[in-house]
Amino acid sequence: MYFDDYEVGSLVKSHGRTMTEADIVLHAGQTGDFYPHHMDAEFCATQPFGQRIAHGTLILSVAVGMLASGDINEAAMTYGYEAIRFIRPVFIGDTITAHASIAEKREYRKNPENYGLVDEKVEVLNQHGEIVMALTHIYLVSKNPHQG
Amino acid sequence: MYFDDYEVGSLVKSHGRTMTEADIVLHAGQTGDFYPHHMDAEFCATQPFGQRIAHGTLILSVAVGMLASGDINEAAMTYGYEAIRFIRPVFIGDTITAHASIAEKREYRKNPENYGLVDEKVEVLNQHGEIVMALTHIYLVSKNPHQG
Amino acid sequence: MYFDDYEVGSLVKSHGRTMTEADIVLHAGQTGDFYPHHMDAEFCATQPFGQRIAHGTLILSVAVGMLASGDINEAAMTYGYEAIRFIRPVFIGDTITAHASIAEKREYRKNPENYGLVDEKVEVLNQHGEIVMALTHIYLVSKNPHQG
Amino acid sequence: MYFDDYEVGSLVKSHGRTMTEADIVLHAGQTGDFYPHHMDAEFCATQPFGQRIAHGTLILSVAVGMLASGDINEAAMTYGYEAIRFIRPVFIGDTITAHASIAEKREYRKNPENYGLVDEKVEVLNQHGEIVMALTHIYLVSKNPHQG
Amino acid sequence: MYFDDYEVGSLVKSHGRTMTEADIVLHAGQTGDFYPHHMDAEFCATQPFGQRIAHGTLILSVAVGMLASGDINEAAMTYGYEAIRFIRPVFIGDTITAHASIAEKREYRKNPENYGLVDEKVEVLNQHGEIVMALTHIYLVSKNPHQG
Amino acid sequence: MYFDDYEVGSLVKSHGRTMTEADIVLHAGQTGDFYPHHMDAEFCATQPFGQRIAHGTLILSVAVGMLASGDINEAAMTYGYEAIRFIRPVFIGDTITAHASIAEKREYRKNPENYGLVDEKVEVLNQHGEIVMALTHIYLVSKNPHQG
Repeated sequence: MYFDDYEVGSLVKSHGRTMTEADIVLHAGQTGDFYPHHMDAEFCATQPFGQRIAHGTLILSVAVGMLASGDINEAAMTYGYEAIRFIRPVFIGDTITAHASIAEKREYRKNPENYGLVDEKVEVLNQHGEIVMALTHIYLVSKNPHQG
Repeated sequence: MYFDDYEVGSLVKSHGRTMTEADIVLHAGQTGDFYPHHMDAEFCATQPFGQRIAHGTLILSVAVGMLASGDINEAAMTYGYEAIRFIRPVFIGDTITAHASIAEKREYRKNPENYGLVDEKVEVLNQHGEIVMALTHIYLVSKNPHQG
Repeated sequence: MYFDDYEVGSLVKSHGRTMTEADIVLHAGQTGDFYPHHMDAEFCATQPFGQRIAHGTLILSVAVGMLASGDINEAAMTYGYEAIRFIRPVFIGDTITAHASIAEKREYRKNPENYGLVDEKVEVLNQHGEIVMALTHIYLVSKNPHQG
Repeated sequence: MYFDDYEVGSLVKSHGRTMTEADIVLHAGQTGDFYPHHMDAEFCATQPFGQRIAHGTLILSVAVGMLASGDINEAAMTYGYEAIRFIRPVFIGDTITAHASIAEKREYRKNPENYGLVDEKVEVLNQHGEIVMALTHIYLVSKNPHQG
Repeated sequence: MYFDDYEVGSLVKSHGRTMTEADIVLHAGQTGDFYPHHMDAEFCATQPFGQRIAHGTLILSVAVGMLASGDINEAAMTYGYEAIRFIRPVFIGDTITAHASIAEKREYRKNPENYGLVDEKVEVLNQHGEIVMALTHIYLVSKNPHQG
Repeated sequence: MYFDDYEVGSLVKSHGRTMTEADIVLHAGQTGDFYPHHMDAEFCATQPFGQRIAHGTLILSVAVGMLASGDINEAAMTYGYEAIRFIRPVFIGDTITAHASIAEKREYRKNPENYGLVDEKVEVLNQHGEIVMALTHIYLVSKNPHQG
């Protein structure tokens, strides 16, 4: 799918995924972040949220992964992310879904003839329909070499 | 460490960590992203980089984790990330290190009396000293309640 | 243990093992199968079983593994599996046990002098004594080189 | 996709995936099968294959998982597997791909009005194009309730 | 920190960490110890403790790891452990903390000019303040080369 | 097997197991010990051993696990470990085997009528036949209730 094929406003939704205690344990193990906010139920019981919360990078990684499970677009690559915000905590047992919509198409100034930038707005929702995380995923997308 | 205690320019460096094939396998398993760019050595041999590359979210998660292994600052929480850029690929066997420096202190408009925003510039370097990823980590930091 | 040493009817039982949420998360991570039937508790609550179910290949792999934890028979190798049936779902928290009995000994037509085929009937039971999976494990077994 | 929508002969191919040492370590850990054929490089160096080989249930699980990464067909569920054969060993570093074709459609005698059986022939190939594993995946598929 | 810098009596406490079902599953997978005391909830319900218990080596490994998360002392290396005792079982959901105090400084007879031995007494406590494990961690520590 | 059934001098040997990079990554993840001696190949290249070394607790846990893979002796439980010594480093790719021999039988003073202590000497060897770790595993073993 080339740059011209992207349409602002089109929306995709991932499957849902329940975030488990095992996911948090595995993410601590992958990153080395064993902060008690994620790992110590006794400490968390004394804190405002009252329970362990998932790492922000876990929710981000899973959200991006859930949206990457479909067909591969060989013409697009990740350029970066912007405006990542952790809006609500994700607790053990919460089920999250990622919604992605094309928000904007922009010129790629370094090479405008061959590439464009596509901003995809990603929102991660929990089972209550509340947004827990938001980000903008920027893709660098090839222009169709067969079109003027 | 309260908002007033942060000094623009101060720098910390993480330990290094070699990114292994096991890390990529585990990150695919955590996120569900089994794209051949990460998982298929035969396919990758036909691509420009010639070999499998680490997921962007893996490098991001590990970098944030490496910087989170020291003391916990109870007065600070992650507000979000900005300007995440994947500048060079990270290959199996590369060793990465994260450098973090306080770039800016800003007013938190929603509650300027009690909180401020601290922008930490994070750069992830490989064993050649090349920057492979950069991001800005924004912290929401309490102001010292005992100071005017 | 050579082909002649196998006796039709002999039975072995594995230890029990409780299938955990962590096992399902790890199996999804190993296989890439993140279907909501295994991973999305909210979706599953709307389905006939009402809860997440273990992957069939997880139960199969664990059952074969539970039976492989004893002594190694160097004279036998796995030839294949037949008649794998997933009879009942396995839920998080169910405890399974594998029962294996020698069902039949057969000629190995490609090399009848040196090998024979042994059909082992495997049944996997849950804590209620219900069969959740059944299969036939076929072994290719050497004949005793010291016997006529 | 209902029973009538399946066409004998249609073929799908998965992405490729390189089987790593980490995959074998994780599969041993999931199943409890630490036999030296999978885990002991020194022992394996004295054996005919000369190196560690992947568990059969690992290849089976990954193959099924690779084919399950696309869209979900809510009208089909796994009924069982037949004729699983481990034809060649898979070594660390081999890249496997799964090919699946519809081989046969059959009556489901217990409930022929509402369901049919679909036999999908699965072949797993390594990077040399050799078949390493074969199996028949049987699906129980609903018939279209809106058709006579 | 050189041998002379250690002070008998000084105490450090780790953060807490809740031991999860996932930790036990992962430790069984790492070690190959799938004994029903750790893995079979049905069997455990018939035993004196009434539930699954964590592997001793899991508690030991986590305790040592929790104490190793701070700064690295390049002058010290692990010489060995003594007097490891598993005093109470650790159940799924228990939160453990490790307390370490310098108990004794001793001569290193093989090379008393350059090294000394430091005995660190480690106690692992659960959320009730009960000691679940104790051990002595022996460090071989360099003497300050710049001091007489 | 009751206390009287143990014979001083009897020896068992485990299967071998190759310690992989994945094992080290997983052990760091389980324990939170990401020290560069285990995780940073660049740093290790500047150190005396020249390469990453396995965590001591990994070798200990695997050795105990390798010896726990056979039949369960319901009459024995782990009382503790003594004299754990890390004699040589274990590198990625080394294959270890555990040898266990009954070294001594001792009175259990708290309850000499019903229990005795059995000291099992465990040595872990690498593929060169060198001892890399040694420990004494103490079992508390029931006396046969049917014997005087």
